[in-house]
Amino acid sequence: MEIKVVRQILEWNQNCHDELQEELNKKKVVMINIMGSPGAGKTTFILSLINKLKEIGINSAVIEGDVAGQIDAETIASQGIPVVQLNTDGACHIEAMSIKNILPEFNLEDIQVIIVENIGNLVCPAEFDIGEHLKVALLSVPEGDDKVNKYPLMFMRSNALVITKYDMKDYFDYNEKRIMDEAKAVNKDIRIFKADSRKGTGVQDFVAWLRPLFNK
Amino acid sequence: MEIKVVRQILEWNQNCHDELQEELNKKKVVMINIMGSPGAGKTTFILSLINKLKEIGINSAVIEGDVAGQIDAETIASQGIPVVQLNTDGACHIEAMSIKNILPEFNLEDIQVIIVENIGNLVCPAEFDIGEHLKVALLSVPEGDDKVNKYPLMFMRSNALVITKYDMKDYFDYNEKRIMDEAKAVNKDIRIFKADSRKGTGVQDFVAWLRPLFNK
Repeated sequence: MEIKVVRQILEWNQNCHDELQEELNKKKVVMINIMGSPGAGKTTFILSLINKLKEIGINSAVIEGDVAGQIDAETIASQGIPVVQLNTDGACHIEAMSIKNILPEFNLEDIQVIIVENIGNLVCPAEFDIGEHLKVALLSVPEGDDKVNKYPLMFMRSNALVITKYDMKDYFDYNEKRIMDEAKAVNKDIRIFKADSRKGTGVQDFVAWLRPLFNK
Repeated sequence: MEIKVVRQILEWNQNCHDELQEELNKKKVVMINIMGSPGAGKTTFILSLINKLKEIGINSAVIEGDVAGQIDAETIASQGIPVVQLNTDGACHIEAMSIKNILPEFNLEDIQVIIVENIGNLVCPAEFDIGEHLKVALLSVPEGDDKVNKYPLMFMRSNALVITKYDMKDYFDYNEKRIMDEAKAVNKDIRIFKADSRKGTGVQDFVAWLRPLFNK
């Protein structure tokens, strides 16, 4: 019974995702879905990414997904970036319908990218398309090198994997080759980046990879 | 519609939880539900806990919950500990029915505690009782000090919070008072421990706290 209902939701979600893509393409706005565990460093990465995009003339807006609270949205708003807080009231992922409801809050003429910070979770967010052009999975060094095989769908469905808190790698038992190999095994096309978002290291490479999307 | 279905599942789950508690109480077996993010250090904490319990004559069995794979179950089996792997095939939490189906796999005469490693996730596992006597939330230092307010249900419903990877606290921006204050604010009775599970530091305190449960 549970499976049947989930399928219905997924179908409805997919229609909503398609409509969102159409609208965003018309406005030439790119949407990026940032996923990862609690504490993977999503907000810090997003802030660094926004700054690097700004340097090449690309303006961002942010949708902050959280089960509860608005700590991260406040951090982003304090930088003068348009942001909407989406509280899921207990749900473990964002759905496309929520994004569709939020879209009118932004002036799509003024921005070129919408960055969505999904709920901190390696399971459910991987299942739901939310109108995004790119899915990006963040995995921090302290989380350990065994996470790809444990949460394969996340890495199967992501266009890129960003290894965050990369500056901490010498402090942990951490086999980088294992992560790389396991990620490529489930998704041969996945792009892998290494970032210390607080210093901005590695974020530049990510921006270089994104750049062709904005020249369409 | 989604909310209605979730409620039905929760009710059914609760009946199953009650049956499990009755059976475990009859056999004088304690069940502990260990929850936390991916990479919070659940398996390492469990291994340390099992060893400390063994020193005081308490034998453990483990149920390893994972979306996919059996890496952690293999680690635990290699120590000679009875273990059953529970794969949820994509679901983000364990339900009581799964535990009920697994229980006959153990010889309950030989063990005094069943430790369940829930799916790595701070959202869904908090919602489902699975027959446990205690819910324990693990939160590692590298995840950051803002997680209690972001995932309040987890800390509201847990009997204990174990701050793991505590040896790493000087390497991260980390405000311990914030975690303690926010945890006590949502759950005044929560017990807080600090552990470096690889060295076993702090696990002893946790065992001392558990001990009265075994004297019933």
